[in-house]
Amino acid sequence: MGDLLVVGSVALDSVKTPFGQATEALGGSATYFSFAASFFTTVRLVATVGEDFPGEHLALLKNRSVDLSGLQVSHGKTFRWVGEYGYDLNEARTLDTQLNVFADFKPSLPAPLRRTPFVFLANIDPELQLDVLRQMERPRLVALDTMNFWIDGRRQALLKAVAEVDVLLVNDAEARQLAREPNLIKAARTILGFGPRAVVVKRGEYGTLMVSDDHFFFVPAYPLESVFDPTGAGDSFAGGFMGYLAKRDDVGADAIRRAIVYGSVMASFAVEDFSLNRLVRLRPEEIRQRYEAFQDLVRFELEP
Amino acid sequence: MGDLLVVGSVALDSVKTPFGQATEALGGSATYFSFAASFFTTVRLVATVGEDFPGEHLALLKNRSVDLSGLQVSHGKTFRWVGEYGYDLNEARTLDTQLNVFADFKPSLPAPLRRTPFVFLANIDPELQLDVLRQMERPRLVALDTMNFWIDGRRQALLKAVAEVDVLLVNDAEARQLAREPNLIKAARTILGFGPRAVVVKRGEYGTLMVSDDHFFFVPAYPLESVFDPTGAGDSFAGGFMGYLAKRDDVGADAIRRAIVYGSVMASFAVEDFSLNRLVRLRPEEIRQRYEAFQDLVRFELEP
Repeated sequence: MGDLLVVGSVALDSVKTPFGQATEALGGSATYFSFAASFFTTVRLVATVGEDFPGEHLALLKNRSVDLSGLQVSHGKTFRWVGEYGYDLNEARTLDTQLNVFADFKPSLPAPLRRTPFVFLANIDPELQLDVLRQMERPRLVALDTMNFWIDGRRQALLKAVAEVDVLLVNDAEARQLAREPNLIKAARTILGFGPRAVVVKRGEYGTLMVSDDHFFFVPAYPLESVFDPTGAGDSFAGGFMGYLAKRDDVGADAIRRAIVYGSVMASFAVEDFSLNRLVRLRPEEIRQRYEAFQDLVRFELEP
Repeated sequence: MGDLLVVGSVALDSVKTPFGQATEALGGSATYFSFAASFFTTVRLVATVGEDFPGEHLALLKNRSVDLSGLQVSHGKTFRWVGEYGYDLNEARTLDTQLNVFADFKPSLPAPLRRTPFVFLANIDPELQLDVLRQMERPRLVALDTMNFWIDGRRQALLKAVAEVDVLLVNDAEARQLAREPNLIKAARTILGFGPRAVVVKRGEYGTLMVSDDHFFFVPAYPLESVFDPTGAGDSFAGGFMGYLAKRDDVGADAIRRAIVYGSVMASFAVEDFSLNRLVRLRPEEIRQRYEAFQDLVRFELEP
């Protein structure tokens, strides 16, 4: 245990969807990731918050046994994001971003954290992702998330980081943009050529496709009648994915398939309420039940 | 054998995609359906063509043992469709439609055809679909396809037809439009309330979702590096789906799952070339191989 590390953001999100809204609620990539992963293993969170960060949020993470020794409390205000979604919940419209203390974030890992075997580099400046990689001592598996902003503005640093990781997590538009190729399958193969062993393409309500050198694996999104807030779905996916691999201490092809299903399970819960509300009230047996529901969703037999 | 009947269109299609074009090539819903289904069982085709319809196309269908006793050769010209696709192959832009003899199509089934147990009502005027249903004698399973044009313009007749069939095949936009509900899962449940036992939602490159009273089933689209022409994908899907059910003479839940996979298999081949070209050179063992590839694409184990 204590074998999974995440570097990313902890934020206060104000989100509006057609189904309601949340104001200055707990958010951020590292937060969703840690919380989701905490159902599988102990997580070490590396991030920064301002002096205004509510103690209740820290308590929430501590209750899940998240190791906060890498969380810097900096002079200033916490990162804030304001966004909204229309009825098409696939894309957020950012209304305001206040980086605050996150603008000067320089991840410096306490010595005991540098030997963590499983590492998730959430969506931050690829220069910082590279900086974290340099501090790690022979991790067993590293996954990296990124976005259009970095693909466009920090391409060279990003390609350098991508070359050093095992798994890249992106959405379809990002995969196409990074590979400069419209066909998604060709794009994924091009990215494999950049270095990673697997590309996990998150397609929101259309599920997740994993492409590796020798095979494809597909998991649909769980069919939900009510999606309240898609914020954090991708990071909750990553939390379930990496949390499961770290728990099993297994990076084999079959474990990666199961990890993608656990990622899909955690994402499906995350979107059922605002902020981390659904994950906060999530019971471990619900994870198992939904995992089994995913199996029922796709099972079919060879002919009798 | 000889146990599957389709009513729909036989057409000459002129199609342009970013990857090439075809001029006055064999097309039409009943054509794609029959050809795909002919790999599973004998198909009875009910449609109309003009006197100008090339004999080579008839020979192609006869070679696949398609029963053409219900094909009317009418005085006039064959139905023609002209369309094009952009790089987003999900939607066709219709440039020209010449209904010709199809405008006066009144399906009249020869007596031996009226007892066919499996029936596919391809996308035609719901009044004609109802008319065909009235001519059938206690079919075992009826599936119906439709489109936005009829949902909008012939809603009452369509609802009447939908109430009488077992399986409705639609795309997501059509499901939402028919149910008047933006959430796809709620929309599918609403449609189940109209009468059918199952709704099969075709989502193009995003796969297929089946919703029935007691469960969901999902099959992804086969990951293809090259999609040349999506025309006929939905009807090829229907052909594989109904062809398999008719061949097995089984309408149970597990057979329907396998049928949806066979439908996905046939659609994945259809889009690999223009017109029916890929289906014409398809070998039965390729169908089996791709079916197994679909199973590999989604398989994952419960934890050891």
